[in-house]
Amino acid sequence: MIRVGIAGYGNLGRGVECALSKSQDMELVGVFSRRDPSTVKTVTDVAVFSMDEIEAKKDDIDVLILCGGSANDLPTQTPEMAKYFNVIDSFDTHAKIPEHFANVDKACQENGHIGIISVGWDPGMFSLNRLYAQAILPNGKDYTFWGKGVSQGHSDAIRRIEGVADARQYTIPVEAALESVRKGENPELTTREKHTRECFVVAEEGADLDKIENEIKTMPNYFADYDTTVHFISQEELNRDHAGIPHGGVVLRSGSTGFNDENKHVIEYKLTLDSNPEFTSSVLVAYARAAYRLCKEGQKGCKTVFDIAPAYLHAASGDELRKNLL
Amino acid sequence: MIRVGIAGYGNLGRGVECALSKSQDMELVGVFSRRDPSTVKTVTDVAVFSMDEIEAKKDDIDVLILCGGSANDLPTQTPEMAKYFNVIDSFDTHAKIPEHFANVDKACQENGHIGIISVGWDPGMFSLNRLYAQAILPNGKDYTFWGKGVSQGHSDAIRRIEGVADARQYTIPVEAALESVRKGENPELTTREKHTRECFVVAEEGADLDKIENEIKTMPNYFADYDTTVHFISQEELNRDHAGIPHGGVVLRSGSTGFNDENKHVIEYKLTLDSNPEFTSSVLVAYARAAYRLCKEGQKGCKTVFDIAPAYLHAASGDELRKNLL
Repeated sequence: MIRVGIAGYGNLGRGVECALSKSQDMELVGVFSRRDPSTVKTVTDVAVFSMDEIEAKKDDIDVLILCGGSANDLPTQTPEMAKYFNVIDSFDTHAKIPEHFANVDKACQENGHIGIISVGWDPGMFSLNRLYAQAILPNGKDYTFWGKGVSQGHSDAIRRIEGVADARQYTIPVEAALESVRKGENPELTTREKHTRECFVVAEEGADLDKIENEIKTMPNYFADYDTTVHFISQEELNRDHAGIPHGGVVLRSGSTGFNDENKHVIEYKLTLDSNPEFTSSVLVAYARAAYRLCKEGQKGCKTVFDIAPAYLHAASGDELRKNLL
Repeated sequence: MIRVGIAGYGNLGRGVECALSKSQDMELVGVFSRRDPSTVKTVTDVAVFSMDEIEAKKDDIDVLILCGGSANDLPTQTPEMAKYFNVIDSFDTHAKIPEHFANVDKACQENGHIGIISVGWDPGMFSLNRLYAQAILPNGKDYTFWGKGVSQGHSDAIRRIEGVADARQYTIPVEAALESVRKGENPELTTREKHTRECFVVAEEGADLDKIENEIKTMPNYFADYDTTVHFISQEELNRDHAGIPHGGVVLRSGSTGFNDENKHVIEYKLTLDSNPEFTSSVLVAYARAAYRLCKEGQKGCKTVFDIAPAYLHAASGDELRKNLL
């Protein structure tokens, strides 16, 4: 059994707990939290420890899955934990990945551990599909569409507006743009042509709705470059109809082959996810299996999904995979 | 530059020649054919050699791409050539993959070479996507649909019927079945519910068309289990409208997460290909790059797409991949 620890117990940590409970070759040793452990109730009643105790558990855990946030937790936590454990994280600040990679690699190399960073679906499975598609069709064009799904960042931005009590924002790909790419038309698409934004907003009593709607639609970076729809609804409606955290998206590459580029090809990878954190957790758990196996082979250092052969992720043996899946 | 040889010069060999002509880090050393080299004209005017001369070229070639057929050529050719070269093939007889793997592995281990077998899209990219999706969603169901595309085997079967001069058969996925899977309904599908078959047949002068149509529709294994449509057309129409070799298909996995399996997820990988052999060739060339790099690292033995980390396929460095694609 692969012994796994979880550091951080929010939506992602709970998702990892759930995914581990269904993996026959893995067991959850415990959850580590910065909160007082007596206040943290896990779904499967697994033990909760204070983060301060984590170093003492280093011989009991084969892989530590870090479930904190990319903005404030992971940049320091992943390299620090890589001193004691093989680590996996879902670091998703694209621009800072090279720096994070270097920091985690240094800690892993010095301490003989494996680190796998930026695991999830974007970065993660979407990145993988961009790589495979580019390698196969070097002469082509990449497209990534996100949604339909909840953007936490955009929902938070709306909630910061005066007079807003609560909000949920959906990112939605423009179907006409998707269809054009699927037909191999290689369109040049502006930000506005790729996605629309739909907002469900609960206003405070007596708030100026026109003012809120205008502030949302003109907000730089978040909404100004998009066609945005705003719906005012009650808190009850928001709780009833928008409690889920669905997401997903599509990665496409459209390319050509032939001596005169006469043959077109489209590669499409599409995810439709009821729960963004639970799917990300499931990817983390598969890569935790890979980290364990790589460590057993004596490898060390920081890796990404690009560096891991697919067979390491699956519980079955090479013989079984060749027989049943190839 | 990675020096590549091609063994066998049909549609696949020509596709590899074309893909290599567009790869900046690879060069084509020559084509090897069992035909008299003076009768073989390559598109890029690259040298053609007799297969009998191939062993003498072993120091001039880093990777040999085998472009013969799975039925008669590759089972003996790939292990034989693995004595002298790093080899890649597109062996696609699913049931015989374990045996072929063992034979190629033996030759590779004894001679310090890398062999990568069953490279293409199915087996190949479809297999990879089955593996990734199963590893991420262990609780789920797999589906593979093929087409719309030309099946060479089914076209040949029709051509063997008395009174048939020429024929082209298309395999077509049933849209309603695909939509049900995409919705996460996890349907149980019979052979007939998954694909239909459409045949374009050129009959010989005076042939009995009803008899031909009946023979096609009742042919065991090939057509009897499918809803089949037969169109009689002229040779001119066949040549004009059905000269291409399009293919493609969809691999889906529909699975659930959550402590009560309350969240559904669908992973879809779809290929839409104008030219089946040219796409397969493009995959072969990407894996030739991987074979070269693995050999440079001192690795040996037989591998499949399951055993190769994605980064080996792409011409860019690890730093560039992390910066631009992750």
